[in-house]
Amino acid sequence: MINPIITLTSDYGSRDYFISTIKASIYKEIESVNVVDISHEITPFHLGECAYILRNAYHHFPKGTIHLIGVDAGKKNERKNIMTKVDGHYFIGSDNGIFSLIFQNKKPEYVFEITVDDKSESTFPMKDIFVKTACMFLRGVKIESLGTQIESFVIKKHFLPNIINNNQSIHSKIIYIDRFGNSVTNISKMFFESVEENRNFSISLPRAYKINKICKNYSDVQEGSLLALFNSAGFLEISINRLNTNEGGANSLLGIKLGDNIIIDFINK
Amino acid sequence: MINPIITLTSDYGSRDYFISTIKASIYKEIESVNVVDISHEITPFHLGECAYILRNAYHHFPKGTIHLIGVDAGKKNERKNIMTKVDGHYFIGSDNGIFSLIFQNKKPEYVFEITVDDKSESTFPMKDIFVKTACMFLRGVKIESLGTQIESFVIKKHFLPNIINNNQSIHSKIIYIDRFGNSVTNISKMFFESVEENRNFSISLPRAYKINKICKNYSDVQEGSLLALFNSAGFLEISINRLNTNEGGANSLLGIKLGDNIIIDFINK
Amino acid sequence: MINPIITLTSDYGSRDYFISTIKASIYKEIESVNVVDISHEITPFHLGECAYILRNAYHHFPKGTIHLIGVDAGKKNERKNIMTKVDGHYFIGSDNGIFSLIFQNKKPEYVFEITVDDKSESTFPMKDIFVKTACMFLRGVKIESLGTQIESFVIKKHFLPNIINNNQSIHSKIIYIDRFGNSVTNISKMFFESVEENRNFSISLPRAYKINKICKNYSDVQEGSLLALFNSAGFLEISINRLNTNEGGANSLLGIKLGDNIIIDFINK
Repeated sequence: MINPIITLTSDYGSRDYFISTIKASIYKEIESVNVVDISHEITPFHLGECAYILRNAYHHFPKGTIHLIGVDAGKKNERKNIMTKVDGHYFIGSDNGIFSLIFQNKKPEYVFEITVDDKSESTFPMKDIFVKTACMFLRGVKIESLGTQIESFVIKKHFLPNIINNNQSIHSKIIYIDRFGNSVTNISKMFFESVEENRNFSISLPRAYKINKICKNYSDVQEGSLLALFNSAGFLEISINRLNTNEGGANSLLGIKLGDNIIIDFINK
Repeated sequence: MINPIITLTSDYGSRDYFISTIKASIYKEIESVNVVDISHEITPFHLGECAYILRNAYHHFPKGTIHLIGVDAGKKNERKNIMTKVDGHYFIGSDNGIFSLIFQNKKPEYVFEITVDDKSESTFPMKDIFVKTACMFLRGVKIESLGTQIESFVIKKHFLPNIINNNQSIHSKIIYIDRFGNSVTNISKMFFESVEENRNFSISLPRAYKINKICKNYSDVQEGSLLALFNSAGFLEISINRLNTNEGGANSLLGIKLGDNIIIDFINK
Repeated sequence: MINPIITLTSDYGSRDYFISTIKASIYKEIESVNVVDISHEITPFHLGECAYILRNAYHHFPKGTIHLIGVDAGKKNERKNIMTKVDGHYFIGSDNGIFSLIFQNKKPEYVFEITVDDKSESTFPMKDIFVKTACMFLRGVKIESLGTQIESFVIKKHFLPNIINNNQSIHSKIIYIDRFGNSVTNISKMFFESVEENRNFSISLPRAYKINKICKNYSDVQEGSLLALFNSAGFLEISINRLNTNEGGANSLLGIKLGDNIIIDFINK
């Protein structure tokens, strides 16, 4: 028999005792399970960051993996708890819009409101409700016995880049900054190429930095030099090749912050 | 057969190699074991913080779990190493007072001084002595063969809140600050209610902030507003609802530091 | 059957999704495996720090453990990927000099250039190539089918301390600073004693601090006092006993930074 996998993603950090009690609760219910931390360092309450991380992590796991999401999970009476199946993976979290940010245009196979713990007054639903639901499901309880099927989870508008200025410009945002200070925009490769149409372009960054081409690899420029590339998640990323991060990460050197606007101007031939 | 669980709590951090060598030593001895990190980010040598974390974590694990404590663990000749059983759980650590801070009024089922490695000059007892003791115990060696029963571990006075000013005030301390900057006092719900006796009250914080009521949930106040509540550990906590922690955590916004004095004044009717 | 162990060491941090996708890829291939994080907080691209951590961690694991190294791992066309066996342990990483820094004078049993994924354009070889190689090896594929034997990995000069000034002085460097701010030099106990020859000595630190003796334990000096000792890894370390690290770690109090020069002067009798 294959060990099931439960992943954990949260904004609880690794210093406090919260995450260990979630693992304790899982091991109390199910012994042969691999529990994998995706990240617990999400900026508190930041659904966009959480969605970016989960969207790029979940599909590397085997189908059938259960992903628990503990970001901005409130009490039962404030919002629903949801279990949904997408892409062969199971996701359990609070119905705060996170699911629509993760899956964007992907259609869920089903969405259930979890009712298994209807009277719970828990202020820690990730431990008290999500773990319980996951473990009952892994022990063979049917989803229909764990909740009530509903039409959809809450849809939250995600920031898509805009084409502005009569098709001359893209207005985008920085949606994620990683450990190295690489600053990820919301521009996918497909979107960029659909607008680019072989025109020259100029990416405007804060502090008057400009980039006029897109590299394939970080090492296409010299150490310490600025570049743009499509990262392994498929999004346009602003980076500095092999930056000594004692100086603070590419983003801080460039003056880029989460949520910043980035404008790309195209030059007609 | 059920996999045993060993938990690890320390101030060793996650950047250095120390914790990985502890796990290596466990897996060398026992293969089918779940090793769970509770926290390695305890402020160095801070027994109070360690006790708060362990007290709130351990009871979520199954009975029979072995908890290793690597905070301020010195050499053999400086102080004893202890294995104790409390509440059906096993704890192994240095006899520096930590056990009395965790268990407070709970009576241990037994306390043993570990003598299994009597000649060790190790400066890293968590790896060299605690792991060895835990693994021998898990393999069936009797506690009597691992050490010598003693009366008690070292009792360290824990900070209890004081009733002062002719029953008009509580003098308490901030004993823990979590990732969100929530600032936890040493006032339990039971203690508070025994003093409150339905009187009105005023909690005085640094920078002249005052709180006059206790909420049930963070969301009882607006986003960004100050509140007090009894947290999931049962202690009075000062918080800000859904604070954007880029601004630095509730405590730093409020000017609260670990160990700060908090005074609650009651108003007779 | 004994569960194999795979360890992970990288500069990817624990906040982003990278490490979770490595674990996902391992569990997809091999179910009964213990995956142990050594550290993911290596200073980005810092081979010296990575080597110090791995050198002090790997030998605590059982022989046969596979250690994956994800620091400064570039694309296939930039440098080779290597699998080597040293001391009964397996190491997989990029041929950027890291292996020579870890093993110093230890001779490898063999060195193979990994060719199993020859056409990969992956920018994330730790996940796409190292994990694949490790899992094929664990499933019984012979090393000869995974790569081509080569003479040696890249040899990178590691900083050794110099004897200068007509045998009167040692010129050394700070090669590692741990969580507590303990500052580790590149002077091994054996090297020191071979130069010392029972002479008195004076260790010169920044800010005019001097140390004239070497302690056995941190607690040989009073709390808050400066000391030097040979740490558990066998290197001369500058420390402060039980420093309250809210003040910033021993190194920052002493003004010591990674890479700093430390001079020891010997006084002839």
